Amino acid sequence: MSAPRTMALQWYEQHEPALRQARRACLERSYFSLFPETPDRHRGGAAAADAGAAAFRAQLGRMFDLRQPGTVGRLSGEVSPYTQAPLGIDYPRADPDLLFAAAEAAMGAWAAAGPQARLGACMEIVDRLYEGVFETAQAVMHTAGQSGPMSYAGSGTNALDRGVEALAYAQAAMSEVPAEALWERRFGSSNIRLRKRYRLVPRGVAVCFACATFPTWNAYPAMLASLATGNAVIVKPHPTAILPMALAVRTCRQVLSDAGFSPDLVTLCVDSADDPIGKRLVKHPRAAIVDFTGSARFGAWVEANAHPALCFSETSGVNTVVVESVEALEPVLKSLATSMSLFSAQMCTSPQNVYVPRDGIRCGERRIGADEFGAALAAAIAAIANDPRRAAPIMAAIQSPATPLLIDQLAAEVAQRGRVLLASAPFANPEFPQARTRSPLLISVDSGAKDFYGEERFGPIGFVITTSDRDAALAEAAADARAGGGITAFVYSTEALYLERAEAAYSAAGAQLTCNLTGAMPLNFAAAYSDYHVTGMNPAGNATLTDLAFVAARFRITQSRMPMP
Amino acid sequence: MSAPRTMALQWYEQHEPALRQARRACLERSYFSLFPETPDRHRGGAAAADAGAAAFRAQLGRMFDLRQPGTVGRLSGEVSPYTQAPLGIDYPRADPDLLFAAAEAAMGAWAAAGPQARLGACMEIVDRLYEGVFETAQAVMHTAGQSGPMSYAGSGTNALDRGVEALAYAQAAMSEVPAEALWERRFGSSNIRLRKRYRLVPRGVAVCFACATFPTWNAYPAMLASLATGNAVIVKPHPTAILPMALAVRTCRQVLSDAGFSPDLVTLCVDSADDPIGKRLVKHPRAAIVDFTGSARFGAWVEANAHPALCFSETSGVNTVVVESVEALEPVLKSLATSMSLFSAQMCTSPQNVYVPRDGIRCGERRIGADEFGAALAAAIAAIANDPRRAAPIMAAIQSPATPLLIDQLAAEVAQRGRVLLASAPFANPEFPQARTRSPLLISVDSGAKDFYGEERFGPIGFVITTSDRDAALAEAAADARAGGGITAFVYSTEALYLERAEAAYSAAGAQLTCNLTGAMPLNFAAAYSDYHVTGMNPAGNATLTDLAFVAARFRITQSRMPMP
Repeated sequence: MSAPRTMALQWYEQHEPALRQARRACLERSYFSLFPETPDRHRGGAAAADAGAAAFRAQLGRMFDLRQPGTVGRLSGEVSPYTQAPLGIDYPRADPDLLFAAAEAAMGAWAAAGPQARLGACMEIVDRLYEGVFETAQAVMHTAGQSGPMSYAGSGTNALDRGVEALAYAQAAMSEVPAEALWERRFGSSNIRLRKRYRLVPRGVAVCFACATFPTWNAYPAMLASLATGNAVIVKPHPTAILPMALAVRTCRQVLSDAGFSPDLVTLCVDSADDPIGKRLVKHPRAAIVDFTGSARFGAWVEANAHPALCFSETSGVNTVVVESVEALEPVLKSLATSMSLFSAQMCTSPQNVYVPRDGIRCGERRIGADEFGAALAAAIAAIANDPRRAAPIMAAIQSPATPLLIDQLAAEVAQRGRVLLASAPFANPEFPQARTRSPLLISVDSGAKDFYGEERFGPIGFVITTSDRDAALAEAAADARAGGGITAFVYSTEALYLERAEAAYSAAGAQLTCNLTGAMPLNFAAAYSDYHVTGMNPAGNATLTDLAFVAARFRITQSRMPMP
Repeated sequence: MSAPRTMALQWYEQHEPALRQARRACLERSYFSLFPETPDRHRGGAAAADAGAAAFRAQLGRMFDLRQPGTVGRLSGEVSPYTQAPLGIDYPRADPDLLFAAAEAAMGAWAAAGPQARLGACMEIVDRLYEGVFETAQAVMHTAGQSGPMSYAGSGTNALDRGVEALAYAQAAMSEVPAEALWERRFGSSNIRLRKRYRLVPRGVAVCFACATFPTWNAYPAMLASLATGNAVIVKPHPTAILPMALAVRTCRQVLSDAGFSPDLVTLCVDSADDPIGKRLVKHPRAAIVDFTGSARFGAWVEANAHPALCFSETSGVNTVVVESVEALEPVLKSLATSMSLFSAQMCTSPQNVYVPRDGIRCGERRIGADEFGAALAAAIAAIANDPRRAAPIMAAIQSPATPLLIDQLAAEVAQRGRVLLASAPFANPEFPQARTRSPLLISVDSGAKDFYGEERFGPIGFVITTSDRDAALAEAAADARAGGGITAFVYSTEALYLERAEAAYSAAGAQLTCNLTGAMPLNFAAAYSDYHVTGMNPAGNATLTDLAFVAARFRITQSRMPMP
């Protein structure tokens, strides 16, 4: 047995119980996590937190140490949404041809090592990423603009759990194929005995696009699904959020090296907005798999042009809320306001469109008019935005300078067709006075104004949409989710029959529904091992993270057979 | 519970043990079959055979009774390769828009019935197809030109086993998703309990293209995989081999009707060579899945243009043989000659190119020169072609009138660049004096003449290719399989190391290898539940029949979640 395999198999032994638990959780869809969600429970204690923060600070203004093949220059350009100052980190800019060549050269030994060794190394990668989660969290904060807690939990521990989930699926799919079989039957008067051997063969080189606002969340599962099934991965970060992925790539390379595999199984391919390289990667003759998270427009191009590469995409989210009837309005408003404010609605799962019947929402004996509801929702959001202790931790920072411009443009346009229920304004972040911030813009429109709300308006922009009645509210919300690409959906109703209809309507629209949720859990929280993220049934993406289909085609099966005495 | 569900669930109860056995066979890859392979062991006895033959005869010259929506005319055109007379059967020609609309309308209740009911109905379809296998065999014989035994076993029982195999995979993939889960965790000081419900949602309408020479073999698994996962299927037969698929469609519709489902879940869409409809079906906005078996040229178009529909394809087979060394030449020649003659090499798995080292094949102490080998192979094939008791049963009939033309054209062209080792000629079929027959053309060329043998030459055309040495034989054969699309591959060598290299080379080329096989089993026999047909790694197709990837993306998963006290 080769040296790399030996070490990787030791890792497999070590992490196998965790994988087994993850697999069970995927089948039961019950709560599971390998990692505590709060920094204070990290196994490294306060020292790990300090070390992570120190490592991040030490990296600022310096060359990122990533020794990979194909370097033809350096590139930088990230700006912290919190300080609006350049991070000053520069990265190796690579020639894609050389990255593909290095990746292909690395794949032979990796494929030959077999599923267990690969799963062992992948679980070790997860473990090391957890080790370095504090540094990653800082990197996410200062590129994507997430809050500290979200960058730790959402981009750290939850993203890692989603990576393990993908590994559990990869293991399940690969374990369908035995290494060997004895097959025997009669042909005429002869008995034929064949020994058959089966091999799992990777597809080839995967290209993984990470997005600007939540880079690790889909990238970890995609990278790990490709690696576990034997492929190499070229990671293409968004030019504004390179550091989180550069750290992940460096960790992967270190683990692979430690085991004796070629680190070129995972490389980083950076580009700039001025000179984008994405299309070249997708159309590269050696690209075998493309995982894409990003804009709806480029995503549609990727989906249509990835062939012959496999393509798994997640793009926009036109996420809808229907408020039909409530036991009590206050908790609903609170949940909606919080979720529409959370990370300034820069998540693919953030609710955007709230549909309300013109004749109002039933609340016990009384009806809350659509206008009254809109005003109350605006007030609930304002209560967050105007509270200095809540605004910054909940809303965090705005990733892109384009977002405030879009907000102002929409606010100006709406004058003709609707009404601004809540104006958007910068708010103060006590810790980062220079932070790019914006409180949510809330707009009231009639359901005719679909050109406003029928697509994703990325950032803290919400619509209260008045529909003719409650049936229209549900029908239009589901239709908009289907046409525009809804990932999540939310319905509030006290009527069992209405909820059943909502379940059916959103299932047909391909949006994952949450009913009557209030309280401490963010409405759009997606749990690894339990919630299927994206259905692949509408323009929000063509894949689910993670189901069997997300992993099963990443490898192929070859066989040989030979007569046995 | 709805009536259709009740009956279908009874069928599920009845067929569940068979499905369970099939699933176990898929995991173990051991021998399994639900159906005896010889007509004499059919449960209906001789009466069933007679009834099948009578039904076929009664159908000739008549309208095919298929009552489905969207009929806009009638169409006929099939000609028996055995009699070269028109079958005179006419079929309803359908408006594709209306078939898609009917299919979509039928899907709601089918999707809602759930996996077990659908699997029950699909197993009942398999059972009824077995009931009618004698009629199907006649239909295959007189459209595709297969021999009687092959049309019964290959196009009948083996094709049905492959359908059950697809059902077992569909069941495995669907059973990954529970109907319901309880999820519970703390958020801050609150406990959140959510009941989650998961639904399997079909992709939509599948289009299944069946091929001219082996229509049922890939169509059964594709149709059943789509149906079991909740989709509707529009079957598009090759215009020269409509009857086998028309019978299958009618059986499907009958079973679905019997259970109370809409029969429009399965419809037939015929066309003619003059007015092909394939592209319109593939690009139809409602097409969600395309299964394609057919020519490499149209297959490449389908693969490139199916998006956004899923595409599963199987096209050509440039199937290669390397003869490096043998214990005894005779059994090898016999196996090669038989397999190259079987059904006149009109199978996607038929060997075409035989690579021989220039310095000859080691056989014990002596070397068999390349010329000597070519002559001996020609003699072995001639021994079949010239034996009236063997020629017709083994070689059967030539499906397409284009094939004899291609044979003659190649024979003429080869004069410049190679040598005809065995000329092709019609042979007498005692039972069908008018049968379109051709004995194999065997051509000797040097490895430079890749324009001759680098692509599939459909029909009884073989090449003996002389290479510089044994390493070149293997390297070129594997490279040709990779570039041209090899499904099967065959190596003869007495050296373990050479066989190991062959395993690695063909695994990389994506062709399924058989080593040193001689004796009663046809070299290219593919066993349901054990052999993975097509790797998806080369131009021979993009999918494997059947693996998890063949079924797992045919449905999607939606969910809803709701707080529980």
